Amino acid sequence: MLKVYLSGEIHTDWREQIIEGAAKLDVSFDSPVTDHESSDDCGVAILGAEPNKFWYDNKGAKVNAIRTRKGITDADVVVVRFGEKYKQWNAAFDAGYAAALGKSLIVLHGPDHSHALKEVDAAALAVAEEPRQVVEILRYVLTGSLPG
Amino acid sequence: MLKVYLSGEIHTDWREQIIEGAAKLDVSFDSPVTDHESSDDCGVAILGAEPNKFWYDNKGAKVNAIRTRKGITDADVVVVRFGEKYKQWNAAFDAGYAAALGKSLIVLHGPDHSHALKEVDAAALAVAEEPRQVVEILRYVLTGSLPG
Amino acid sequence: MLKVYLSGEIHTDWREQIIEGAAKLDVSFDSPVTDHESSDDCGVAILGAEPNKFWYDNKGAKVNAIRTRKGITDADVVVVRFGEKYKQWNAAFDAGYAAALGKSLIVLHGPDHSHALKEVDAAALAVAEEPRQVVEILRYVLTGSLPG
Amino acid sequence: MLKVYLSGEIHTDWREQIIEGAAKLDVSFDSPVTDHESSDDCGVAILGAEPNKFWYDNKGAKVNAIRTRKGITDADVVVVRFGEKYKQWNAAFDAGYAAALGKSLIVLHGPDHSHALKEVDAAALAVAEEPRQVVEILRYVLTGSLPG
Amino acid sequence: MLKVYLSGEIHTDWREQIIEGAAKLDVSFDSPVTDHESSDDCGVAILGAEPNKFWYDNKGAKVNAIRTRKGITDADVVVVRFGEKYKQWNAAFDAGYAAALGKSLIVLHGPDHSHALKEVDAAALAVAEEPRQVVEILRYVLTGSLPG
Amino acid sequence: MLKVYLSGEIHTDWREQIIEGAAKLDVSFDSPVTDHESSDDCGVAILGAEPNKFWYDNKGAKVNAIRTRKGITDADVVVVRFGEKYKQWNAAFDAGYAAALGKSLIVLHGPDHSHALKEVDAAALAVAEEPRQVVEILRYVLTGSLPG
Amino acid sequence: MLKVYLSGEIHTDWREQIIEGAAKLDVSFDSPVTDHESSDDCGVAILGAEPNKFWYDNKGAKVNAIRTRKGITDADVVVVRFGEKYKQWNAAFDAGYAAALGKSLIVLHGPDHSHALKEVDAAALAVAEEPRQVVEILRYVLTGSLPG
Amino acid sequence: MLKVYLSGEIHTDWREQIIEGAAKLDVSFDSPVTDHESSDDCGVAILGAEPNKFWYDNKGAKVNAIRTRKGITDADVVVVRFGEKYKQWNAAFDAGYAAALGKSLIVLHGPDHSHALKEVDAAALAVAEEPRQVVEILRYVLTGSLPG
Repeated sequence: MLKVYLSGEIHTDWREQIIEGAAKLDVSFDSPVTDHESSDDCGVAILGAEPNKFWYDNKGAKVNAIRTRKGITDADVVVVRFGEKYKQWNAAFDAGYAAALGKSLIVLHGPDHSHALKEVDAAALAVAEEPRQVVEILRYVLTGSLPG
Repeated sequence: MLKVYLSGEIHTDWREQIIEGAAKLDVSFDSPVTDHESSDDCGVAILGAEPNKFWYDNKGAKVNAIRTRKGITDADVVVVRFGEKYKQWNAAFDAGYAAALGKSLIVLHGPDHSHALKEVDAAALAVAEEPRQVVEILRYVLTGSLPG
Repeated sequence: MLKVYLSGEIHTDWREQIIEGAAKLDVSFDSPVTDHESSDDCGVAILGAEPNKFWYDNKGAKVNAIRTRKGITDADVVVVRFGEKYKQWNAAFDAGYAAALGKSLIVLHGPDHSHALKEVDAAALAVAEEPRQVVEILRYVLTGSLPG
Repeated sequence: MLKVYLSGEIHTDWREQIIEGAAKLDVSFDSPVTDHESSDDCGVAILGAEPNKFWYDNKGAKVNAIRTRKGITDADVVVVRFGEKYKQWNAAFDAGYAAALGKSLIVLHGPDHSHALKEVDAAALAVAEEPRQVVEILRYVLTGSLPG
Repeated sequence: MLKVYLSGEIHTDWREQIIEGAAKLDVSFDSPVTDHESSDDCGVAILGAEPNKFWYDNKGAKVNAIRTRKGITDADVVVVRFGEKYKQWNAAFDAGYAAALGKSLIVLHGPDHSHALKEVDAAALAVAEEPRQVVEILRYVLTGSLPG
Repeated sequence: MLKVYLSGEIHTDWREQIIEGAAKLDVSFDSPVTDHESSDDCGVAILGAEPNKFWYDNKGAKVNAIRTRKGITDADVVVVRFGEKYKQWNAAFDAGYAAALGKSLIVLHGPDHSHALKEVDAAALAVAEEPRQVVEILRYVLTGSLPG
Repeated sequence: MLKVYLSGEIHTDWREQIIEGAAKLDVSFDSPVTDHESSDDCGVAILGAEPNKFWYDNKGAKVNAIRTRKGITDADVVVVRFGEKYKQWNAAFDAGYAAALGKSLIVLHGPDHSHALKEVDAAALAVAEEPRQVVEILRYVLTGSLPG
Repeated sequence: MLKVYLSGEIHTDWREQIIEGAAKLDVSFDSPVTDHESSDDCGVAILGAEPNKFWYDNKGAKVNAIRTRKGITDADVVVVRFGEKYKQWNAAFDAGYAAALGKSLIVLHGPDHSHALKEVDAAALAVAEEPRQVVEILRYVLTGSLPG
């Protein structure tokens, strides 16, 4: 079985597209918590309020890291999606983390971001623009079948 | 001796401030090539032209990775600076790479970026706003002396 | 599945509280032998008497280490509980061992111990006061659900 | 050259005794910052005030970790001293950290602590009561000479 | 269960011979995509055309590396077959990759290649000439039974 | 489940005693091929005759290493038995190999060998004289139950 | 200082070109023994004759591996040159070995070999055709200066 | 510089022969304490008497392990000499330890021991009979010069 971690952008349905497209393949998927509000609030909701925004964020980011670290560490393939908006530094951080662990990295982004992502893409084994292409890579890697 | 790699933003003199401030300390510094144009062009300048911009960038990013990988791998401490402009995904990628290797990470950025950098900051041993503070950390770590 | 090792204090029912609270989650728990007397005597009971108390303890601590090492090495998350009494140096030792292996560390202790445990807490991804909070972290990490 | 990290108790002159005793040996010593006040305050002194004591401590413990991690990671031998007073959980944490990295561990403590330290001692290659004995171990390891 | 990766030559039925011969053993086999055309074209078929043959090949080789890396990383034993024709540098590359990861390496080739493969053979735990011998090794390793 | 590798002496039934004694425990056992003749001959029986005894032995030892390496690498606990006769250097080699990988080592030998095995015993978490004691350790480690 | 290992083809002066070209740079170079005859004969010349050519080669390849392993393990950058003639499987083996260790890989070969070397090139950070280009990469990586 | 650790037999002058023979080479040598009595007594001489012989030996073996571990861990090449007498299990233990760490192993023994040492020899890159041959290997590995 191929273990795939889906990191990055959480505002579109790219994860669902990949998971549905790969439904018949021997793949297991993991991803961060994608509910933006829960992800932001988890630290204080569980471990107690923080009036200072920095520590509010810090507590939450660390709780989320428990999930993220396991997801990346256990994965064979890490897919990192960069969307159109926001800084998405956590996505690039995950890509660097995965690269240092020797994970197979697939980066998913539109052509506008190619120059800004050149260091990330240079560490990847595939750079795709569409979730469909990630599904096709997974199918090929697992079965040898090419699209069409 | 403490080996420090200075990653990230290349448009202000923060590296010079740190290097000068730490001049009397037992520190060696390394950093990426900070000439923006050379950094962008090194791949094709050495290895031959590429009409396709993606491969133009890819060649350059990989040549730069020879330097970056060594710098981070050899370092005891990796300082990553996020500036006001640009996506700076390579900085966040370096931070993730350093974190996965267990390097001591110091992140340097203004307070406006705290929320967007919360995952990166959560992996750090220090989050500073000013180059001066990085110098003070290095001085304290090496000599035990605190400012003032 | 998330593998969780429950290290530290053995005089209250905090392990039971966590295990019961997490009964419906995809978690497996491991822990040291928590019967104090057996834990102290296992070395000589199996491998033969020792008149010298140091070696009596040494034999037992090593037999217990067979279990502890496997538990920590196999774990994704190591929870370390510090109680009100005793030196509990084995708990802090386990925390350091887990940290060096890159495990996600959750520390559980009352607020009175915060200063004395600051180095341990600084290596943790979460610092909780109640077993209930550990359950909430595990639930959030596995399902994304927050309390309340 | 043998690199030795001296961790633990900071209220007696045991480090000085070892360093002086080993003055003619090919050893380099490293240790944490042993000024108690500086060690407690370094985080806020450099990175800014924290009204909440937990974060005050957290900031400082992380800055100190930059030094500690390098010291232990670079060391061949880690000596951990447990004194008569305080919880000293950071000492036990360092011992666990060093053990997990496969460092040669020497534990230094009085006989009263033997039972409470049995798990730490069980991971050690030597358990000494006096700084003089640590010097004798270093001399023997480096030169083959035994005392007296 | 023994996990075996079958690397190298794709123009004869040596993999089938081994898999059939080992049908009753507790072995799982993995291998690269052995359809030559698919293997060459996978990059552009999925990720988009490349007029430049170097990048055409580069895209494909990287997609194939996702499968190869996982196969070798997960394997207990890596069998590398060198056939009569072609350069087969990818086979030797896989052998070096496997050797550096400490995998048990079995090399399979005719006697004509012994001198040219001496560095590869020197890293192997067995050098066989026939697929049948690989089956016999697997049977012996798993059951202790020798042929005949 | 606890994975246990039983290395060393092959002329008495100590492995059977341990395996039977641990029949109700959640343990899986692995061991080298214990048929002396097969173990000596496997290399030439499968890979072809060698007139020179050194290479005859070398071929066989390497084929056996495929099994041994996997057994030790996969194990949580490595038990090494030293008997009364022969040099048994392979047993001591396995013990060193296991120790370097950080496996929990149990050494099993009679009191006559204590001085000669002091370096091996010093790397062990338990030194037993009887197979029954190994069973008791496994039972304690898995269930917390002590004998009697 | 940058440590560079020069692997592969031994029949042209490419190593000398690189070493001379980089004479003013902070680089240290290592390489295999490049005297073909010595490299072939070293095993039997030192360790005794072997009538069987396989073992003749095997003894030599292993003695050479002592040098090669150290060279690659110590290197920051591994340059692998593929020439026009011979199988050169040892070069591809070295490339795979270096890649698995995470070394920065530079591959040097003529355009005719691009298809056959696509898996090796895909693991590289630079693919050059001329020794001069390797010098230019080293100069850029160390000084930031581009040619011309 | 090549770092060489000389392990094993301590009753003949083989170490001196190698060190003298390699006097002009860029090699540094390390070895265990070779004074038999000091090596046996170091534990109790420094850390206090033990009436029980097992613990007497255990204390000493652990103090010696501080030196041995560093020597093997730092080495590029580990030479292990087996003499005519004694069990020499510590030598075989060191060989296994070195092999697991991926060190280049050279085994030195007379032909009578070949069968008993076949597993150790199978892990070696060279098997020599005379100290002179070890010198010749070191000279060849460092300079490319063959004897005669």
